[in-house]
Amino acid sequence: MAENVSGALRRYLPVLSWGRQYRRDQAVGDLVAALIVTIMLVPQSLAYALLAGLPAEMGLYASILPILLYAIFGTSRALAVGPVAVVSLMTAAAAGRIAATGTPDYILAALTLAFLSGLMLMALGFLRLGFLANFLSHPVIAGFITASGVLIATSQLKHILGIAAEGHTLVEMVSSLAAHLGNTNPHTLIIGLAATAFLFWVRKGARPLLLALGLTPRLADILAKAGPVAAVMVSVLAAWLFDLGAKGVAVVGTVPQGLPPLTLPSFSLDLWGSIAGSALLISVIGFVESVSVAQTLAARKRQRIDPDQELIGLGAANLGAAFTGGYPVTGGFARSVVNFDAGAETPAAGAYTAVGLAVASLLLTPLLYHLPKATLAATIIVAVLSLVDLSILKRSWVYSKADFTAVLATILLTLGFGVETGVTAGVLISILIHLYKTSRPHMAVVGQVPGTQHYRNVLRHEVITDPRILTVRVDESLYFANARFLEDALFDMVAERPAIQHVILMCPAVNAIDMSALESIEAINERLASGGILLHLSEVKGPVMDRLKRADFLQHLTGKVFLSQHQAVMELGGETMKA
Amino acid sequence: MAENVSGALRRYLPVLSWGRQYRRDQAVGDLVAALIVTIMLVPQSLAYALLAGLPAEMGLYASILPILLYAIFGTSRALAVGPVAVVSLMTAAAAGRIAATGTPDYILAALTLAFLSGLMLMALGFLRLGFLANFLSHPVIAGFITASGVLIATSQLKHILGIAAEGHTLVEMVSSLAAHLGNTNPHTLIIGLAATAFLFWVRKGARPLLLALGLTPRLADILAKAGPVAAVMVSVLAAWLFDLGAKGVAVVGTVPQGLPPLTLPSFSLDLWGSIAGSALLISVIGFVESVSVAQTLAARKRQRIDPDQELIGLGAANLGAAFTGGYPVTGGFARSVVNFDAGAETPAAGAYTAVGLAVASLLLTPLLYHLPKATLAATIIVAVLSLVDLSILKRSWVYSKADFTAVLATILLTLGFGVETGVTAGVLISILIHLYKTSRPHMAVVGQVPGTQHYRNVLRHEVITDPRILTVRVDESLYFANARFLEDALFDMVAERPAIQHVILMCPAVNAIDMSALESIEAINERLASGGILLHLSEVKGPVMDRLKRADFLQHLTGKVFLSQHQAVMELGGETMKA
Repeated sequence: MAENVSGALRRYLPVLSWGRQYRRDQAVGDLVAALIVTIMLVPQSLAYALLAGLPAEMGLYASILPILLYAIFGTSRALAVGPVAVVSLMTAAAAGRIAATGTPDYILAALTLAFLSGLMLMALGFLRLGFLANFLSHPVIAGFITASGVLIATSQLKHILGIAAEGHTLVEMVSSLAAHLGNTNPHTLIIGLAATAFLFWVRKGARPLLLALGLTPRLADILAKAGPVAAVMVSVLAAWLFDLGAKGVAVVGTVPQGLPPLTLPSFSLDLWGSIAGSALLISVIGFVESVSVAQTLAARKRQRIDPDQELIGLGAANLGAAFTGGYPVTGGFARSVVNFDAGAETPAAGAYTAVGLAVASLLLTPLLYHLPKATLAATIIVAVLSLVDLSILKRSWVYSKADFTAVLATILLTLGFGVETGVTAGVLISILIHLYKTSRPHMAVVGQVPGTQHYRNVLRHEVITDPRILTVRVDESLYFANARFLEDALFDMVAERPAIQHVILMCPAVNAIDMSALESIEAINERLASGGILLHLSEVKGPVMDRLKRADFLQHLTGKVFLSQHQAVMELGGETMKA
Repeated sequence: MAENVSGALRRYLPVLSWGRQYRRDQAVGDLVAALIVTIMLVPQSLAYALLAGLPAEMGLYASILPILLYAIFGTSRALAVGPVAVVSLMTAAAAGRIAATGTPDYILAALTLAFLSGLMLMALGFLRLGFLANFLSHPVIAGFITASGVLIATSQLKHILGIAAEGHTLVEMVSSLAAHLGNTNPHTLIIGLAATAFLFWVRKGARPLLLALGLTPRLADILAKAGPVAAVMVSVLAAWLFDLGAKGVAVVGTVPQGLPPLTLPSFSLDLWGSIAGSALLISVIGFVESVSVAQTLAARKRQRIDPDQELIGLGAANLGAAFTGGYPVTGGFARSVVNFDAGAETPAAGAYTAVGLAVASLLLTPLLYHLPKATLAATIIVAVLSLVDLSILKRSWVYSKADFTAVLATILLTLGFGVETGVTAGVLISILIHLYKTSRPHMAVVGQVPGTQHYRNVLRHEVITDPRILTVRVDESLYFANARFLEDALFDMVAERPAIQHVILMCPAVNAIDMSALESIEAINERLASGGILLHLSEVKGPVMDRLKRADFLQHLTGKVFLSQHQAVMELGGETMKA
């Protein structure tokens, strides 16, 4: 009993495993990583809150308690949890349907999204339903992330231009931008363009320059990561010196000073009903993004993560966000990679980062009053454009038109109808494509490869066939969606070959036969019999055979079931094949 | 050019094929069949209109022009088109959401359902999308028809009892019946019970009795089919003699005398929007029912039907119904079988039936004034109870729990939430079950069957294995839903076998590898390589190999691709296996 309790505790509280053996060298690595990540996260958290349409401080709050909770419940040692771009955009889309951006109801909707998302993730984790995320195929995720990157970058152009614009789809955004273009604020535009240019340069150019200046690689790394902080400091200084706020440059304004407040999500069932779908999408997308980052990083150190426990970790983080003024969070790609590269050894790095951010929100917030929103927008644009990867279109085109269709549809639908429609449609389209493909299975007439016991497609290999025997290999499990196709295709083949006396259905690739398909095979058996043709099966897999034995089909089968195709041809072919 | 036109004409107008060679003996068969079917259809058409909540004459109208149009465009020689029980119930459910039963708006909704259904069927036919109907699996159809039979029979009990009751689900109906049970009209009940008992008896007992009385088998058949007509005549007579209308027995009342009127469906896009989903379900269910009847009958005479042309035939019939005071129609099981058994040779039998029904609606309608609705309800109950077949539950339970789940869910959801929810959920559930099963593929470790080149599951056969080689046969196509499962399962197997140097993925059952799965295999390849283990593939199918060659995966593959598993083991196993 005590064993069970401690086993369950260790499973649901991974902190018990790594926490007991926490070593001094690990602590040093964790502290350095935390410092770097904190420097990176301050501007990023503010920026993503802006993207989500929320007060800047909510971005900071969403990075404090959630990180701590993930450190306790999560299984990845390097994952950094907090606001991320795509989830921020999805939060804006969902809360925007409930209330006007920035209103108390809008904020309440964001808190409630985090709460519902936390509950859903927890539930999926306890029910061990993490595999459901597999229904998001790689091409759909790639297309969705790329399209989201384009949407997010476009959504930030209004801050760069200093104009009002809105919309959740590309067309809405672009036409709204075009309509307000005349109101562009030149001061804002200068700051926005300068910050964007600087940040793009800093990504690639800063490190080599710093190394050339004689800094150690480690220090050069840290300073390069601090690029966004430098942009923030310079633009705050510029805005203060030149009093840009008075010249129409939108600034962040008063950010409350202090630790995250205690907040409550809404418990209105009406609100829950109208945002539950969005919360589910946010949960699934957040989970998929987080798990793929976590698995990539874990593989590099030969560690394993447990997807079901990850659901619990992320669920706890989101519940934490809901009660401390945050909004939906997940494991972010950029921050996790930085954390990993900076030497984070255990989830304690996350805890230290949380402390760093708490200090920042206690002490630094007054300095952010003059921070131009254009600078934050530049941070976002530079960050998300790295998500845009159109090469998936080319790769999928080359590999498979079906995958290409799913990618292209996901990209176009996300751009054209917003994130929620895009990702939902992407999942449905990839399922439909899969069903369509399996509903028209590849069927090959096969013959014997001379001198072997192998039977291969007559169209691809030089093989021997017997005019009295038609062997058809069906390259698909047989189920309701292709049962009728099998009937039609088989009768067409038989009709073309009047000399046929035996039809062998070769089943090495038939992994299942459901009831609909069984009824179709029974119909085939009956119709062939009426034409004097016997139906045989060969190479039926064990599990399929077990199932066939449960029905009375084998009693009606006019022919036999052969263990191997070669046995079938030897017995039925008589002298022809042996010669 | 002229060839093409005449080919297209012959394809879209099957009447051109059989009409030219119409022979005298065929005409005799058709006329006799038409007479029998007409006798059967008069009460049935009235009854189904009652079930649909429509005026009785609409049932007759729905059987006249639609039959003629199907005779021109349809490909089945025996199918009899008109109102059927399940589609009538679905019409009632859909129109009932738009307006109160029997109101002009309700009737307009029924006409519009026929119109939209006609357009949809036509569109599916011209786009050659008949295969979509395959997504309705046999178990789902069986469960749906059975549950619909129960719902329909229950819905008619109010007419037998002579009370008012309503509802679209079993619980609603039963509780509504229970609430009004006190108002049961004894005269109605006597007529209803007597008619039901008589009709049940007539199905089995009439023919032997008539034969015993010395009638020819042919005449006995015809008279037995006329059972419902006899019930109608006797109850009309009884109602008239005893003035039952005045005693609270609900009668059909005034039925307009004349040919079908010209009617127009609604062209309101609002209405279209609210019933389009229902129209689609009615179309698909009607098509599936009709095609399965048509194929069954065609097979008996070695004829073929063309499912895509059937869509056009049924589409034309429904458009005809919409413009001549009918409601959605399809090929009915009972009437088609009667038509076939009575000797119908060509679709002309349908045309003659249409003439017979036109005569009936011109001349006989005044006689129907006193017809008790209880008699019609009895006709329906007896007809639909033959649809109820709970044996599907037992058969599917024995064969496959997945199919059983789909059947049971369809039955329960149809009874509990009505026909539309039931059939939609049935389709979704069978798709989800299929996805779930393929997302956890069967994977077998295989070894060599001694003395052969065959490799079989180590758990099922006495086979030879090499401790340095792990061969895993994956019994499923690899795609996004099972890509991660493959990774996890394979690493678990490798972890249990420390001596392994080679992993062979044996792919005779892998019919496709999509991009998500390819990325997983690449990850497996990379991770095995880091442990010093080579990954090989064997028995990769031609189409799968073609696809793999398009990606750069084969350049990264640490091992080889072998044509056969035996070659792989010979080459990798060295002396061990040859010994």
